[in-house]
Amino acid sequence: MLGRIDHVGVAVEDLDGALALYGDRLAMPTAHRETVEEQGVEAVLLDVGDSHVELLCPLGPDTPVGRFLAKKGPGLHHVAYGVKDIEETLEQLNGQGVRLIDQTPRPGIRGSRVAFLHPAATGGVLTEIVQGADH
Amino acid sequence: MLGRIDHVGVAVEDLDGALALYGDRLAMPTAHRETVEEQGVEAVLLDVGDSHVELLCPLGPDTPVGRFLAKKGPGLHHVAYGVKDIEETLEQLNGQGVRLIDQTPRPGIRGSRVAFLHPAATGGVLTEIVQGADH
Repeated sequence: MLGRIDHVGVAVEDLDGALALYGDRLAMPTAHRETVEEQGVEAVLLDVGDSHVELLCPLGPDTPVGRFLAKKGPGLHHVAYGVKDIEETLEQLNGQGVRLIDQTPRPGIRGSRVAFLHPAATGGVLTEIVQGADH
Repeated sequence: MLGRIDHVGVAVEDLDGALALYGDRLAMPTAHRETVEEQGVEAVLLDVGDSHVELLCPLGPDTPVGRFLAKKGPGLHHVAYGVKDIEETLEQLNGQGVRLIDQTPRPGIRGSRVAFLHPAATGGVLTEIVQGADH
C-alpha cells in the first residue's frame, strides 16, 4: 500500500540556519525550493538517497507549521510515504477504517499530490501520502 | 555522507496497537522484533520499500523512550540515516563541528552499530546514523 519513505518533514524557524546544517554540514544537495501557499510554508527539499528531507518554514504564525512550532518547537513534523496511485491508496485506507484529514488529494510541493492521515489514527505521527508528478 | 533514510523511529505506548496499525491497516510486513536492553526498548522493524519504520516501546519509565513519552506523548521519535562506514561518518561530523551524543558507535537493533547526533545541533531533530550488520 505504502511504497517507500518519500521524505521526512522538519519544522524549522530559521530556514537559512537549517540549510547550513542539512546542506552544508550534512552535505545533502538541495533539490527544490518552493513556497506552497496552500500549506502556508516555504519548503526546501534536500536529497538523501532516493528520499528527501523537507524543511518547512511557516509563512506566518497562523499556519499549520506556525502553530506546530508555537506548540512543540522545531523538530520532526511528519513522515511521508510515496504511493503510485493516491486515490486508490485513500480508498484502501478508508476501507481499513483509517481516519483521514484529506479525503481527496491536495497540491503538494513540486507538482505532487498529497493527503494527510489523521494523527489520532496513527499514534500521534502526522503521516502523509504523496504521489509524485512523475506518476 | 548520509546515504539514505534507513528508518524513522516512532515512540509507542502500546506495541500491539501500533502493530495493528502499521502491520495490519497499513500493510507493512514485520521484518524483525528485538529487545534492545542497551536502549531500554522493545523494538519492531517493519518494511516500507528499502527503509523501515521502527516502533519503540520503552521497557520502563526511566529509559530514554519512556521519558520521551512522558514529556511529548507518542509520535515521531527520531530519523536514522544509513551510512557505509560509521567511524568515518562520525569523524566527518566532528570535522563539521556537529555536536554528537555518541562519539563512538553503540549496539543497535539487528546487529547494527548506531550513533546519535545531539538534537541541539540538528534543530530539535533526534538524528541517528546506522551502519547495518551487512556493511
